Amino acid sequence: MKTNLRKSRLSPLTAVLTTALLMGGAAMAQQTAAPSAGGHKADVTPAEQNYQGAPSPLANEPMHQAANPKAPPMSQAEFDRARQIYFERCAGCHGVLRKGATGKPLTPDLTIPKGTDYLKVFIGYGSPAGMPNWLTSGDFDEKTVDLMARYIQHDPPTPPEFSLEDMEKSRKEYVPLAQRPTKKMNNYNINNIFSVTLRDAGEVALIDGDTKKIINIVKTGYAVHISRTSASGRYLYVIGRDARLNLIDLWMEKPDNVAEIKVGLEARSVETSKFKGWEDKIAIAGTYWPPQFVLMDGDTLKPRKIVATRGMTVDNEYHPEPRVAAIVASHQKPEFLVNAKETGKIWMVDYTDLQNLKTTQIDSAKFLHDGGFDSTRRYFMTAANASDKIAVVDTKTSKLAALVPVGKTPHPGRGANFTHPKFGPVWASSGLGDESIALIGTDPVKHKANAWKVVQSLKGQGGGSLFIKTHPKSSNLWVDTTLNPDPKLSQSVAVFDIKDLSKPPQIVDIAGCAGIKDDGPKRVVQPEYNVKGDEVWFSVWNTKDKESALVVVDDKTRTCKTVIKDPKLVTPTGKFNVYNTQHDVY
Amino acid sequence: MKTNLRKSRLSPLTAVLTTALLMGGAAMAQQTAAPSAGGHKADVTPAEQNYQGAPSPLANEPMHQAANPKAPPMSQAEFDRARQIYFERCAGCHGVLRKGATGKPLTPDLTIPKGTDYLKVFIGYGSPAGMPNWLTSGDFDEKTVDLMARYIQHDPPTPPEFSLEDMEKSRKEYVPLAQRPTKKMNNYNINNIFSVTLRDAGEVALIDGDTKKIINIVKTGYAVHISRTSASGRYLYVIGRDARLNLIDLWMEKPDNVAEIKVGLEARSVETSKFKGWEDKIAIAGTYWPPQFVLMDGDTLKPRKIVATRGMTVDNEYHPEPRVAAIVASHQKPEFLVNAKETGKIWMVDYTDLQNLKTTQIDSAKFLHDGGFDSTRRYFMTAANASDKIAVVDTKTSKLAALVPVGKTPHPGRGANFTHPKFGPVWASSGLGDESIALIGTDPVKHKANAWKVVQSLKGQGGGSLFIKTHPKSSNLWVDTTLNPDPKLSQSVAVFDIKDLSKPPQIVDIAGCAGIKDDGPKRVVQPEYNVKGDEVWFSVWNTKDKESALVVVDDKTRTCKTVIKDPKLVTPTGKFNVYNTQHDVY
Repeated sequence: MKTNLRKSRLSPLTAVLTTALLMGGAAMAQQTAAPSAGGHKADVTPAEQNYQGAPSPLANEPMHQAANPKAPPMSQAEFDRARQIYFERCAGCHGVLRKGATGKPLTPDLTIPKGTDYLKVFIGYGSPAGMPNWLTSGDFDEKTVDLMARYIQHDPPTPPEFSLEDMEKSRKEYVPLAQRPTKKMNNYNINNIFSVTLRDAGEVALIDGDTKKIINIVKTGYAVHISRTSASGRYLYVIGRDARLNLIDLWMEKPDNVAEIKVGLEARSVETSKFKGWEDKIAIAGTYWPPQFVLMDGDTLKPRKIVATRGMTVDNEYHPEPRVAAIVASHQKPEFLVNAKETGKIWMVDYTDLQNLKTTQIDSAKFLHDGGFDSTRRYFMTAANASDKIAVVDTKTSKLAALVPVGKTPHPGRGANFTHPKFGPVWASSGLGDESIALIGTDPVKHKANAWKVVQSLKGQGGGSLFIKTHPKSSNLWVDTTLNPDPKLSQSVAVFDIKDLSKPPQIVDIAGCAGIKDDGPKRVVQPEYNVKGDEVWFSVWNTKDKESALVVVDDKTRTCKTVIKDPKLVTPTGKFNVYNTQHDVY
Repeated sequence: MKTNLRKSRLSPLTAVLTTALLMGGAAMAQQTAAPSAGGHKADVTPAEQNYQGAPSPLANEPMHQAANPKAPPMSQAEFDRARQIYFERCAGCHGVLRKGATGKPLTPDLTIPKGTDYLKVFIGYGSPAGMPNWLTSGDFDEKTVDLMARYIQHDPPTPPEFSLEDMEKSRKEYVPLAQRPTKKMNNYNINNIFSVTLRDAGEVALIDGDTKKIINIVKTGYAVHISRTSASGRYLYVIGRDARLNLIDLWMEKPDNVAEIKVGLEARSVETSKFKGWEDKIAIAGTYWPPQFVLMDGDTLKPRKIVATRGMTVDNEYHPEPRVAAIVASHQKPEFLVNAKETGKIWMVDYTDLQNLKTTQIDSAKFLHDGGFDSTRRYFMTAANASDKIAVVDTKTSKLAALVPVGKTPHPGRGANFTHPKFGPVWASSGLGDESIALIGTDPVKHKANAWKVVQSLKGQGGGSLFIKTHPKSSNLWVDTTLNPDPKLSQSVAVFDIKDLSKPPQIVDIAGCAGIKDDGPKRVVQPEYNVKGDEVWFSVWNTKDKESALVVVDDKTRTCKTVIKDPKLVTPTGKFNVYNTQHDVY
């Protein structure tokens, strides 16, 4: 059942989906948005209108043209069209400045010697290493393939910067501080609210985890990447791929947006200060473009300080586009941990004094992606997915504790913590590149010999896994295979028994439970526990024009308990339980 | 006697000299190197050959061309020629990427709307704000003016990066560690050796301060900007504008180079670790291009870590070219202080753990230039010269202590510390923009009301001052006026009596003492004390083809004591006494 997504079993569409989810999402958005021209149109701001169905937030931005006299000639109109296609289809993997990440570098010094004809073959027919076959898949015609082959021999145009002033201009306080409630004005069990990304709608659904009813559908940026709860549990921070950040107040009678800001052109990450004495005070958002992060007032999103991540890689070479991937808030110090993807550096950012800003840049490995804490919340475990490694940062000493080799292209989400019957506390990661699930020892005191080693490697259903999850009160370890090319695998999940990990996993047909009549991919994605740890929620993620659902599984019996369906639940993907997110329970 | 160098009294040549010395030196090199095609030719490496008389180290580097379709057309040959002229004449003030510093920004968004004809007038005739009159001065012909007017409407080409690998490739160990002396092998009083920059020769002269004899002429980079002594006093670090860094071992029978490295394409600064336990261990060099600094092993110059300074200004706008100006070594912590000119940020760089690199970026003001410590060596006093301010950093708390408004364009060198009869301990700065000399209180404990305030402003001879100096054992305060357009002022210095600062200064005709028969500018530059503090040395700096000299003044009588002349003393400028530099005595 070994499935290596880097090899030729990858279908063109899946390759696009994989790389898009991993690296940028531009192609992803195009793929899933394309079938439906309609969708959610009422009450949209001009900014929203821009991004409704717009495949890449960068596509509409003005750019400098940079021609290269050695490259094949192009008209300005051709250049502009190619630039837009590049941002929609190529930038996610190859980078805006074409320095390469998941995809290969495509700078003129490399592309010009190859020549137009050679490049056309690659663009048209793809490669087993993961490059989509844009011509034979029907996405590009011959002319477009030729256009793109010429375009990538020219110098990459640089998108505009985004300053503090630009951010401040975009900021809105829908409900100023003085007009917000001073106590909780509703009867919801806030701890058990789920913030669910409605990917292609540019919204999140707030769902009451007790009653399974939708509380509100809140307008947000496009394809919200994550929701994060403030330390007090009152505020939700929600960031779209278009770098639109929304602040939702859960104390309102009907929880809704109270503030909003655009922090750049493309983003993935947001977090909020959690150290004692700093609860809810500072927010941070990281952007893919420009490559930087911004520190803001937690309750108004007023931007205070931008820090550029441009700089040297762990190999001491300059990189112009180190995109900000995962950000987490330290529980040990008043610091954020910020993954700079392309440089392989994990920044620890002290938020107590913005005029005299202290940071520690920890050299780990390329390219950094997602991660979470161990069960003690002292160690940050994060995927350097192109290096097939998990980097471990000791947030108490501000040093790299280890680089742990794991399976191909780890993608843990925030990972899963449990006590292994034999090896003690472990943190688990699944991955995109193969079916292996790495259990890494995380107790350097009582289980020193096991610490920062893969103590056991489990065999999941296959590659294409995005998320793995358990809960302190559960003995189940759930692993999705969302991007596996085999629909049987992408529509079901594997569940291991933590008490006996020698047993093969049980396979649960989640899409089957949903009873969706529509065709479409119906991918099952992201297990998320409720606050009690007795239910696990899954998204059955269909295309925008088709029915999707949330499936709630009873954790003890591993059987479907509730299916949540609603015409408003368009393309649900990530789900964030307020309490578990607030306390880093996973 | 007020002379504001920014105003129209500035002669074209002086404008070039001023801005070159202040900001880049490219134009400077051109001006002083041009008269003589000959000079020092024996035993030069190919790299040296490149820079002998080469006005800018950047001019010969390969660049990407970046055309702009909206700009007037240029042939590739025209573009290449203009690019070279730009680096030689314009980059020092306007920046390699034309974002502006002392000169205005010249990016196409600003230049295209102005148009070729308007730009030609500015380039040809200059402006009272300091832009040289390239046509009427005879430096450019009509065709070149037209060429440059078109060129600056195109996108600025970006010079190449310089990685750790590039540095390591350039590195030479002339005398490996194992072959170096284990004790001092000569009878020199090392404490009183002076390292004297022979600007246009690409050398330093090591001069015995006791006998006034030349010990050795050591090959270095072009136009050495500074020499720094290691904490033990054994090693001298010498950096050229071409970013060539030489390590000289003063323990050798005849002190000479033991190692060398090229750290970039253009540089100004070098320093060495001084904190207890870290003596001589780490060296740091800062570059103008690429905008970054590198940490090296102190005894071999082996490069270990590069840190890019590209990032946000104090106004939270991205700047692609924050050049590294002054660097000093903290005496309070194992840290370097690094001035990033264009961002206005002072970096404190902890050198104890390069894998987990801790830095503090202190927001001050633009554009940072030179500076030194107060008498306690706790506070770093540094010029933000375009802001007419001195920034004060508390190196113990790693915070900005104050921003002190002073006269126009402060240029203190490392400044001068003494105890003011009325106001207590002060640190003094002279400046380029006017004749004022600011005395700033530096004792926040016993003279709290005076701390970080200009307690007295002295009137010097005029603007155009580069350096000010005193010594703990002296009651004289010496101020040069090297770049004043009036030869009387540029060839003499003012000396104040610290015991009675109400008296006007005495004017000492230093160039007169030198008895140089040649014509030429004969500028007097940089007072430097000997180790005892009873002599003060000045350079009489003539052009390369003319006689120069060093003049040693008896500090007590303020009269000339010794004139050092030698055909090998070509264009002497900065002088660094080993002991005073080692211990930050000034």
